Amino acid sequence: MSKSSTVTLRENPVQEVTSAKAGGLTIHGETFIVQTDQRIELIDLTNRVMEFVRRFNIREGIVSLWSMHTTCTLFINEFQTALLSDIKRFLEQMVARDAEWMHNDPNLSDCDRMNADSHLRALLLGHSLTLQISGGEVVLGQWQRILMAELDGPRARSLRVQLFGVS
Amino acid sequence: MSKSSTVTLRENPVQEVTSAKAGGLTIHGETFIVQTDQRIELIDLTNRVMEFVRRFNIREGIVSLWSMHTTCTLFINEFQTALLSDIKRFLEQMVARDAEWMHNDPNLSDCDRMNADSHLRALLLGHSLTLQISGGEVVLGQWQRILMAELDGPRARSLRVQLFGVS
Amino acid sequence: MSKSSTVTLRENPVQEVTSAKAGGLTIHGETFIVQTDQRIELIDLTNRVMEFVRRFNIREGIVSLWSMHTTCTLFINEFQTALLSDIKRFLEQMVARDAEWMHNDPNLSDCDRMNADSHLRALLLGHSLTLQISGGEVVLGQWQRILMAELDGPRARSLRVQLFGVS
Repeated sequence: MSKSSTVTLRENPVQEVTSAKAGGLTIHGETFIVQTDQRIELIDLTNRVMEFVRRFNIREGIVSLWSMHTTCTLFINEFQTALLSDIKRFLEQMVARDAEWMHNDPNLSDCDRMNADSHLRALLLGHSLTLQISGGEVVLGQWQRILMAELDGPRARSLRVQLFGVS
Repeated sequence: MSKSSTVTLRENPVQEVTSAKAGGLTIHGETFIVQTDQRIELIDLTNRVMEFVRRFNIREGIVSLWSMHTTCTLFINEFQTALLSDIKRFLEQMVARDAEWMHNDPNLSDCDRMNADSHLRALLLGHSLTLQISGGEVVLGQWQRILMAELDGPRARSLRVQLFGVS
Repeated sequence: MSKSSTVTLRENPVQEVTSAKAGGLTIHGETFIVQTDQRIELIDLTNRVMEFVRRFNIREGIVSLWSMHTTCTLFINEFQTALLSDIKRFLEQMVARDAEWMHNDPNLSDCDRMNADSHLRALLLGHSLTLQISGGEVVLGQWQRILMAELDGPRARSLRVQLFGVS
């Protein structure tokens, strides 16, 4: 039984900025860096994503947000300070940090971050969002905010953003 | 600490119907309204989505469904009456409605719906689905149904549907 | 109250292989078969998906993975043997197999698989992933693996893979 984790290797690393155009379709990709300050932290990325999309002349299409990490997730919810505390408490209740997880046992795992709870909490939230673009802007309801959940910080996290559509 | 929720403001509201064409690619967006009758309710949208997709001449592509709300979610499961009751019971067990959530405390939150449970249950299910279209129809397995979970009804809910593909 | 499950009927079955091209955009779909050996099993599909994407000359785009089943899900996490055991234990803890689920009661449900737990566990993980393609390869972080969770095996499972992009 291997104690190590499988590494994902591309032939070439993801480029900082990528663009492709074909027959009126534009695809544009970039990386966002988000610095976190706490072990568990919820960060509102809505304005950053909305402003990014407005910079490109894509009228109708989609925008994909992808967390490049296993313990950093993306989800939609309301941004209200008390509710954010409830969400953090809920994640802590659903997955006990100090349960006897095998991933935290040095006899069974090379990982020295003791972060089984972070991996399990990430299962519940998911690592990506695929949003619509319409009228040149992201489609979101009045109370919907694009939130990132840092589950094993503080760290500098990378998110990849890809626009896909026609102008 | 703010008691209010951040509002998401587009420069222009999402249009009822949008269309774009470029080089053989068609993108078409519309809004579905779904009226719910109970606080927690599971609604089968499969036939409505399948019929919508068949109306457009898109042979291969994707269709995005997006709930415009924080307490109304979309997911895939089997539609069997007893199972739907199990799903509702499971959501109620996972998040207790009457726990002391801060979002329900008028000293901490402007929200007067007492719906912290709805927000937390929404975390587990997610707010969107991105499905494949192939052969002019939605790709779904024999027992897969597109379900909407109303988590804080009854209300009239808006879903945005966007087709993206070639004919 | 019906004991049976609603069946999803397309006018024509999904074709094994589909392709469309328009104005520089390529869309290509295929079915992967994955044989599972246990009731609950986690399978790493990363290499298979990465190799599949590299075979097509799509430089920038997206790839959608869709499980054709209600009790077989797709998600992102780290592939480390002890962590996989933790994930299985967590799913078993979150949803008790032997609770009195109505879907397992022959008076209420035609289903004879006694698999309410599988359906409820699937709610937590979701049935699809929409990933980015950039530089001709899938965009994934160093520790991210594309995992399939068999929740009611052993069975032969079908996943539909759709590429969408420009070369």
